[in-house]
Amino acid sequence: MVQLKAGPLGEEALRPLPEHKFTFGLWTVGNRGKDPFGSEVRAGLDPNDSVRKLAELGAYGISLHDDDLVPFGSSAQERDAIVRRFRATLQESGLVVAMATTNLFAHPVFKDGAFTSNDKQVRRFAIAKVMRAIDLGAELGAKTYVFWGGREGVESLAAKKPADALNRFREAIDFLSEYVIDQGYGMRFALEPKPNEPRGDIFLPTVGHALAFINTLAHPDMVGLNPEVAHETMSGLSFYHGVAQTLWQGKLFHIDLNGQKIGRYDQDLRFGSEDLKDSFFLVKLLEDSGYDGPRHFDAHAYRTENAEGVWDFAAGCMKTYLILKEKAARFDVDPDIQEALAAASVGELAEPSVGAYSRSAALTLRDATVDADALAARGYYNERLDQLVMELIMGVR
Amino acid sequence: MVQLKAGPLGEEALRPLPEHKFTFGLWTVGNRGKDPFGSEVRAGLDPNDSVRKLAELGAYGISLHDDDLVPFGSSAQERDAIVRRFRATLQESGLVVAMATTNLFAHPVFKDGAFTSNDKQVRRFAIAKVMRAIDLGAELGAKTYVFWGGREGVESLAAKKPADALNRFREAIDFLSEYVIDQGYGMRFALEPKPNEPRGDIFLPTVGHALAFINTLAHPDMVGLNPEVAHETMSGLSFYHGVAQTLWQGKLFHIDLNGQKIGRYDQDLRFGSEDLKDSFFLVKLLEDSGYDGPRHFDAHAYRTENAEGVWDFAAGCMKTYLILKEKAARFDVDPDIQEALAAASVGELAEPSVGAYSRSAALTLRDATVDADALAARGYYNERLDQLVMELIMGVR
Amino acid sequence: MVQLKAGPLGEEALRPLPEHKFTFGLWTVGNRGKDPFGSEVRAGLDPNDSVRKLAELGAYGISLHDDDLVPFGSSAQERDAIVRRFRATLQESGLVVAMATTNLFAHPVFKDGAFTSNDKQVRRFAIAKVMRAIDLGAELGAKTYVFWGGREGVESLAAKKPADALNRFREAIDFLSEYVIDQGYGMRFALEPKPNEPRGDIFLPTVGHALAFINTLAHPDMVGLNPEVAHETMSGLSFYHGVAQTLWQGKLFHIDLNGQKIGRYDQDLRFGSEDLKDSFFLVKLLEDSGYDGPRHFDAHAYRTENAEGVWDFAAGCMKTYLILKEKAARFDVDPDIQEALAAASVGELAEPSVGAYSRSAALTLRDATVDADALAARGYYNERLDQLVMELIMGVR
Amino acid sequence: MVQLKAGPLGEEALRPLPEHKFTFGLWTVGNRGKDPFGSEVRAGLDPNDSVRKLAELGAYGISLHDDDLVPFGSSAQERDAIVRRFRATLQESGLVVAMATTNLFAHPVFKDGAFTSNDKQVRRFAIAKVMRAIDLGAELGAKTYVFWGGREGVESLAAKKPADALNRFREAIDFLSEYVIDQGYGMRFALEPKPNEPRGDIFLPTVGHALAFINTLAHPDMVGLNPEVAHETMSGLSFYHGVAQTLWQGKLFHIDLNGQKIGRYDQDLRFGSEDLKDSFFLVKLLEDSGYDGPRHFDAHAYRTENAEGVWDFAAGCMKTYLILKEKAARFDVDPDIQEALAAASVGELAEPSVGAYSRSAALTLRDATVDADALAARGYYNERLDQLVMELIMGVR
Repeated sequence: MVQLKAGPLGEEALRPLPEHKFTFGLWTVGNRGKDPFGSEVRAGLDPNDSVRKLAELGAYGISLHDDDLVPFGSSAQERDAIVRRFRATLQESGLVVAMATTNLFAHPVFKDGAFTSNDKQVRRFAIAKVMRAIDLGAELGAKTYVFWGGREGVESLAAKKPADALNRFREAIDFLSEYVIDQGYGMRFALEPKPNEPRGDIFLPTVGHALAFINTLAHPDMVGLNPEVAHETMSGLSFYHGVAQTLWQGKLFHIDLNGQKIGRYDQDLRFGSEDLKDSFFLVKLLEDSGYDGPRHFDAHAYRTENAEGVWDFAAGCMKTYLILKEKAARFDVDPDIQEALAAASVGELAEPSVGAYSRSAALTLRDATVDADALAARGYYNERLDQLVMELIMGVR
Repeated sequence: MVQLKAGPLGEEALRPLPEHKFTFGLWTVGNRGKDPFGSEVRAGLDPNDSVRKLAELGAYGISLHDDDLVPFGSSAQERDAIVRRFRATLQESGLVVAMATTNLFAHPVFKDGAFTSNDKQVRRFAIAKVMRAIDLGAELGAKTYVFWGGREGVESLAAKKPADALNRFREAIDFLSEYVIDQGYGMRFALEPKPNEPRGDIFLPTVGHALAFINTLAHPDMVGLNPEVAHETMSGLSFYHGVAQTLWQGKLFHIDLNGQKIGRYDQDLRFGSEDLKDSFFLVKLLEDSGYDGPRHFDAHAYRTENAEGVWDFAAGCMKTYLILKEKAARFDVDPDIQEALAAASVGELAEPSVGAYSRSAALTLRDATVDADALAARGYYNERLDQLVMELIMGVR
Repeated sequence: MVQLKAGPLGEEALRPLPEHKFTFGLWTVGNRGKDPFGSEVRAGLDPNDSVRKLAELGAYGISLHDDDLVPFGSSAQERDAIVRRFRATLQESGLVVAMATTNLFAHPVFKDGAFTSNDKQVRRFAIAKVMRAIDLGAELGAKTYVFWGGREGVESLAAKKPADALNRFREAIDFLSEYVIDQGYGMRFALEPKPNEPRGDIFLPTVGHALAFINTLAHPDMVGLNPEVAHETMSGLSFYHGVAQTLWQGKLFHIDLNGQKIGRYDQDLRFGSEDLKDSFFLVKLLEDSGYDGPRHFDAHAYRTENAEGVWDFAAGCMKTYLILKEKAARFDVDPDIQEALAAASVGELAEPSVGAYSRSAALTLRDATVDADALAARGYYNERLDQLVMELIMGVR
Repeated sequence: MVQLKAGPLGEEALRPLPEHKFTFGLWTVGNRGKDPFGSEVRAGLDPNDSVRKLAELGAYGISLHDDDLVPFGSSAQERDAIVRRFRATLQESGLVVAMATTNLFAHPVFKDGAFTSNDKQVRRFAIAKVMRAIDLGAELGAKTYVFWGGREGVESLAAKKPADALNRFREAIDFLSEYVIDQGYGMRFALEPKPNEPRGDIFLPTVGHALAFINTLAHPDMVGLNPEVAHETMSGLSFYHGVAQTLWQGKLFHIDLNGQKIGRYDQDLRFGSEDLKDSFFLVKLLEDSGYDGPRHFDAHAYRTENAEGVWDFAAGCMKTYLILKEKAARFDVDPDIQEALAAASVGELAEPSVGAYSRSAALTLRDATVDADALAARGYYNERLDQLVMELIMGVR
């Protein structure tokens, strides 16, 4: 049998450390396995236990919805006791709260949306709930606040005029921006797009739509994105390309890593367990880009798993990221890959095509005679390049 | 048998007229039925004949790629003769050239892209070709110039750094904007997004991504979108929502109407032949929005059709639009539908949720006690509303 | 405004009656609106109340999972009391139990499947539960028993050898067939395929796979299918074609009607609210085929709805079916449509191509000279035909 | 940097040899890069040159459509000369013709289908063409004859009654079966399903539908399947599961290997370049199953490639197969994986659940008391197992 496995395995490089900035939502390891057809399969986790266990596994921090920590309907006194205890656990474990967000989807009050519910009282309640959750996030030190418009959509297209919905969405984000500025919290907002589920069609369905929306806000500088692998992949879009455009527009404020097959229900699978190729390029992009935010896993263990399986899942997310990170480093030094990149003229795409406009340059270019057939004759050697990448991913180079 | 058919049919209202602004690409009625597995099934059409026939059917205008009218490689003399004759035909028939665009995808020289080809010489050739095609469009009176980045993408993710590609795309659009300004053409640009096919993953895959991109341009005001039903639908996104956001951002410069099933090859079917519901809301949106541009059909007849079938196809596109337009008008006066809209609180979404920010308003809202369960108890009657819409679409109300 | 609405509306023909054989699952109108991201929005319904209300709306019967009527874990005494009361309600209301099935997906014991759980004790428990549920179905007069292999699949391909899973699935169906024969219940089985959700990949993912599987069973004659609109549509397959092949193979034993968009989570929308065209041909097929089983709605009201909306939903399913049934009848007498069918040579497809084999016929055919170009010249006028169908669906013919 | 690459690389094991049974369609390496939006980018290949080059790369054989070798419309004399020369090349190179098939899609005569064209004369022409192509295949020694019903479908559902289409399809296969028997060719037929493209909806869209269809034939034993990665994947179905069911039903007669993303146009990408996980399990299944037929690549080089890139593509297909085959062997001996399989009770699924039916066994099972909650408590450790598989695929174990 051929030796395909790494020789000196370098286990060291694959051990998660806080410097890798891996974070998990409390709701991810705490997921109890409920799905549309079945009830919970696992006991709930005490958030304090989750923090301790994640610290042990090498994570950097956690994220949370308001209700993940403080159950909906808790009194102020209960809230404070919970928060006090949680802060102590964080301090002991060394974990940070890297991101906070609001649960605007679980309670029936949000069944028609939150910021875009047709009922004005619901919209006001949603904004109030976010303010309280922002306070909580600030108290816990979160510097990024995520907005996932879970139910901001429709099943029946007649039920909302999209322009009204976008106006209300903008109104809410603008109001909450002012609140954060007014309170001096120094937080940034990150919008998380999703195309559908649990609503039929959700507003701001992709990173593109959300990037475009930001541009209409009163405080566009403090608002960026939190793209999620599963959400873009549901639509069959390349997540790698989506994150790259987000970075290009200076808007990658946070990221949700997981796995997903195209054209399915929101699977939230273990990172790297689907589409290794897109995952590889994603990790390479994050590592090359200078992005220094959390590598946040928004996924959950299969419903087949008991408590032990949850930690297998969490460890697997981090390990796969680190494996792909090592491969990304190797990509840059593999001589065959570098040669194939040159044959494909990949670097040439960084060169300006025409430079700044001038009338004479334009007319000269326009009127030049070019032998298109001759230009068309060359090959780009993308098959060779792609095969080398697959071999790198498969560990045989 | 029940009488489901309209009583007084009002054939008059379903007859296409120039005032309806229906336009067709020369390449649509001229499509010869070639597909990846088979060769042409129909003879080519002389563009002059297409113009005359479309005028007869009630169209307002046509659109064209440079090569649709002037075959690739024609001499300047040949070009001028062709254009002269074509202008005469337009004048006789009363049709306008409502939009022009460039064929940047048919010739092998563009196999790795045009503005984003890795080969700089190809990029330069592409920009030069567009300048010449813009000249042609200007000569023919086109006020909108469309960019469909047909091959601006990759099969292998390694083959282009997305940031480089976006830089080159922007460079090309900026340069060409300057050219149009410099020439005093008074044209506007409309970008046409598409997620994949003929490339594996195409840059600017949805209307959202393209809207976001526009914001990075040197002349964002002169650049908008040309959304296409088929392209957004391939990704499973609601085209109605996509066009609504485009309008909301002031960027609907042109529109491509056709039909498509989700998750398939680019079908370019007759308008209204798939997803009647989304098509109905689209027509209603266009009619209500004040959009006064072309209703442009970018579709083609099935490959089963001979020449006669092509004109059945063209007539069908226009007739279905007019039928849906009539239904849209009826929507606004149907008392049951209006009642259901009220029960769903659709109008209430137009009301501000919180108004302008003030600290005291924010804190009052944040700290108010709300009975969420009570708010959650109400229904939104969306089933009733949606059923009424379906009945309207089916012509039984 | 044009008169698009039916003149003499024939409300009579659109009123559901028991003879139309409309049935609903208890779980459909009883659906409480829970989804992966949120909790229940509606109170549960007493099955007896559901029966009474459905009778009032014109339904023919109901269907049920064992646990829909008799809660999991009820004692024998409780069960008998519940069943007694339910039978009385059925008798009073005149509704029948047209189909029964087993809940093999809600309890955590089935998290890895039922008939194909890797745990043998779970498989045995599943088979036992089905026997008890079959007894219940028999007691209630159900003549069709449905098997939806809800969790018979995997997230990780390594977790089950597919051949083992198929062997266990077959073993279970064969054993249960013997049980039904042995008990003299006179029931038929109907398998319900689904491609994914709640598992990543489910065995027997389409009607095709299930039809092929039946052929391997010990009692293939007593096993057929229960195809569901949403399940086939999730994979982008034509449900109309799938049901047609099922009928062609003599295996349409039951049918689940609802609505769904391609490539999404299992939406279970109101029948006819998506893809009117496929729905139209489906209704026409059912009505033309001589299928005399239930028209069973396996769908549920949007989560935005309160109790009232549930009945809007139920009434809408039936009304849309009846509207499409009227249109199907009209299709057969519309002279333009009949002419277009002839132009498309639709009837000619019913004629044998070559007849029975004989050597001489074969060789004569093989060696004949044919002018393929001449044969290729004709058109099939499918655009004309399709446009007429769309106009019929839209009620303007 | 970590050593992720294999130490002793075992290049030997990755060198394709005839014993691996790799075959390529003449049309795959000969693909000239035409697509719906652009013309050919590469010169055609002489089939004799393709054979020689494939022999050099280590292939076992080739496959062909009639027209790939003998251009449509060739005279009998021309045909014989071409065949004579081709047989000589095969003999010199040592390659076999492992499969033959018919081009029933390229010529306009087939625009409405071949066996299911509405035009009876077209259907007869199609059957005659297949007989001649079967003769050619027999002359070249092909023992498997493939039927890809490329255009056996519709865009407009009204255009064919599905039952008529299935009857005609069956008639054609039955007639051709008799022909092969009568001629004593000893060939087997393999049907190749596809869901859509180039038609809107194609009959027999998945391996399941085709398996079910075979059962209705006059000679079911001589008809099996030729499943293709891309075709099943277009519908989002697991190809691994589809091939497993095909094998389970004894019907894997041939296989088409390539790569594809879900929900897209037919990409026919290099084998293994998409969805490595499904590809890995596919290779493992083929190697474990005793399937001894061709590993046939039905794919083509990206359109970016020149002649050289075509051979990079071909070599890549074979190399990736061999890499995955090595990994499959390692799977069976990796102790961690074997332990995880045991923890997941994967082997237990091979054990009968209940055994043969007897009344007493059934009643005992039915009436036994089981503690479902206790059975539900166990975990299945699928996350651990799946992570180990991903690590194997990534070459770090």
